[in-house]
Amino acid sequence: MKAVSREKQLRTVVEALDLDALILMSPENFAYGTGLHIITVSMIRPRQAFLIIPRNGEPEMVLCSIEVSLARQEGWVEKITPYTEFVDHPMDMLAGRLRELGLASGKLGMDNDYFPLSSYERFRELLPDANLVNTTESVAAVRAVKAPDEVAFIEKGTRATHRAILDAMTASKSGDTEKDMCLKIATGMLANGGDGTAFLCFASGDRTPMAHAMATDRVPQPGEIIRFDVGAVYGAYSSDFARTYSAGSPTDLQKQTYSALVRSQKAVIEAVVPAMAAEDLYYLTRDAFEKNGLPFRQAHIGHSFGVELHESPMLRPGEKTKLVPGMVLNIEPSVYDEFGVKYHTEDLLEVTETGFRLMTLGFAPEELPVIGQIITA
Amino acid sequence: MKAVSREKQLRTVVEALDLDALILMSPENFAYGTGLHIITVSMIRPRQAFLIIPRNGEPEMVLCSIEVSLARQEGWVEKITPYTEFVDHPMDMLAGRLRELGLASGKLGMDNDYFPLSSYERFRELLPDANLVNTTESVAAVRAVKAPDEVAFIEKGTRATHRAILDAMTASKSGDTEKDMCLKIATGMLANGGDGTAFLCFASGDRTPMAHAMATDRVPQPGEIIRFDVGAVYGAYSSDFARTYSAGSPTDLQKQTYSALVRSQKAVIEAVVPAMAAEDLYYLTRDAFEKNGLPFRQAHIGHSFGVELHESPMLRPGEKTKLVPGMVLNIEPSVYDEFGVKYHTEDLLEVTETGFRLMTLGFAPEELPVIGQIITA
Repeated sequence: MKAVSREKQLRTVVEALDLDALILMSPENFAYGTGLHIITVSMIRPRQAFLIIPRNGEPEMVLCSIEVSLARQEGWVEKITPYTEFVDHPMDMLAGRLRELGLASGKLGMDNDYFPLSSYERFRELLPDANLVNTTESVAAVRAVKAPDEVAFIEKGTRATHRAILDAMTASKSGDTEKDMCLKIATGMLANGGDGTAFLCFASGDRTPMAHAMATDRVPQPGEIIRFDVGAVYGAYSSDFARTYSAGSPTDLQKQTYSALVRSQKAVIEAVVPAMAAEDLYYLTRDAFEKNGLPFRQAHIGHSFGVELHESPMLRPGEKTKLVPGMVLNIEPSVYDEFGVKYHTEDLLEVTETGFRLMTLGFAPEELPVIGQIITA
Repeated sequence: MKAVSREKQLRTVVEALDLDALILMSPENFAYGTGLHIITVSMIRPRQAFLIIPRNGEPEMVLCSIEVSLARQEGWVEKITPYTEFVDHPMDMLAGRLRELGLASGKLGMDNDYFPLSSYERFRELLPDANLVNTTESVAAVRAVKAPDEVAFIEKGTRATHRAILDAMTASKSGDTEKDMCLKIATGMLANGGDGTAFLCFASGDRTPMAHAMATDRVPQPGEIIRFDVGAVYGAYSSDFARTYSAGSPTDLQKQTYSALVRSQKAVIEAVVPAMAAEDLYYLTRDAFEKNGLPFRQAHIGHSFGVELHESPMLRPGEKTKLVPGMVLNIEPSVYDEFGVKYHTEDLLEVTETGFRLMTLGFAPEELPVIGQIITA
């Protein structure tokens, strides 16, 4: 997506905590704050990148020189202090820049849930008088409410992924391996605009209980369940989507288990309204499972979604955060049948002023779909 | 790849530093130590996972319960302490387990280059008497020398990626967009056994200087350079490969610049022998560039490769580590011509007893290849 300034949103953290500067360094916070999708910030961790938002002054970056041309071309932050990898230590450059800004003894918001200990120790020696505050949660709270352009961008990716999945599973047939089917999904996601695959979990039969198993050369047999949870990369964002299919000749137990799951998921999604607590969706799922005769044993039933796969608020017990319009949530209940086979569906929604808006192409079909079948979402 | 025990290699760190236990927690160290490819360990950072290797006792893991079935199915570490996400804090579980092992005041090796500050603070309160030692570099040094099965696994992926690239660029034609060509590469990598795409950097013309730009809808024009640096996921490993092509009708300057780059790269690779220092390869590249009339301005000219994209030793000034057989290195010089266009080739090799062994299908062609051309590696 086109790099967009989130300065205004992030300055609310500066104000609320009375910071002299907010420093973003985790890959997700850096991407959010700068709008930049620089893959090495997450893939080559020592090549650290920082966005500094001083209370009094323009936002600026400290960045490895190798990434500066990309940042200038695609970003909105104009002021960049480049460092040379292996010559300058990123922490020295950050501390030096903060000192130049007169912030050596300032109150600084830091991503302490990311800040690596050895980096912290070096930084601490350089700026012993700085007052460091952990702003991980505050920034996460800001990120939780998406801007309209963010919602639109995520939605476009989600729908492209959903389309690829529907087409891939319709094109799949008896005798295909897990890998064959997963390849159809992956190539479809890429052909539909994905910048890469984010993750491809795909399993059948007795492999379904493994939460994040990769596809194998196993051929799903008639009477077996196929379950996948996949996502494509779209700039700094991705998609996250799960569906369950039958490899053919589903049993009554399978059909009933699946339909009960989808009914439960739909009931929970349709209950979404602003001002309810995130944990309410967890308990609603537990209740829906009970009503539909399903055993319930999830630690969470979904999560917020943004530059990070699992964001705050998580849909889990104890999460009291109130839903507000602009939050984007994945609702993903799952269930095991009496043979230990796992079923799972996952859809994305936006919380609106009056309720919710589905961001996928549509709900999962209420009847267990069979590979090869045409599903109209 | 089949999960393989690296216990023996890792115990050399326990011995050398006289540790009571070595604890691995960075995604790459966890993957290396356990042989497990659990995507959430890197993708959902709060879902921390730990491998504990006690001096006196069997290796064991602390792991989120949702990942236990995968770990039992595919891993070699039998002893697992599962925790329930959002109910148990991973740090409490790690500290608790270390206490049970009688290690509360032990000398513990930790990944301090990864250990998040807020996790450290929690851990420190729970085990105030533990003597924590930063073992990031020691573990990296162990990982630097690959086991034969690791070399074979990486080589298989690298060759599959190279094959996909050769086919994709032969299938590319004038009028294709950057995205069209990149999609051919990506789908080829997936069809050739990739578990996903790791990264897809693809640029043409005046976009080539951006180190890690994604493909766009731009149509490379005759007379323009195309440069890409891509990798696929293979289990816990990946591939990393760069090539430069012409979109057609290359200028003499382009042909000369490219050939000089490839000659330089080849000269450096052919100079690889055990016992030379990693930094020697950097200076050899600088010298080869000078000999071939190219300007030189790289911070490094390559890197070790393993479960992490850039591993130790890096091929940079100041890196005195001696090359030893079993090291796996990417050699990736790059150069800018007088119009600022960037050329880049990257190949993988294994250091052997007598020199090197190329792990890609072959060197880059010495003459600048044009899209559509059949290249025999």
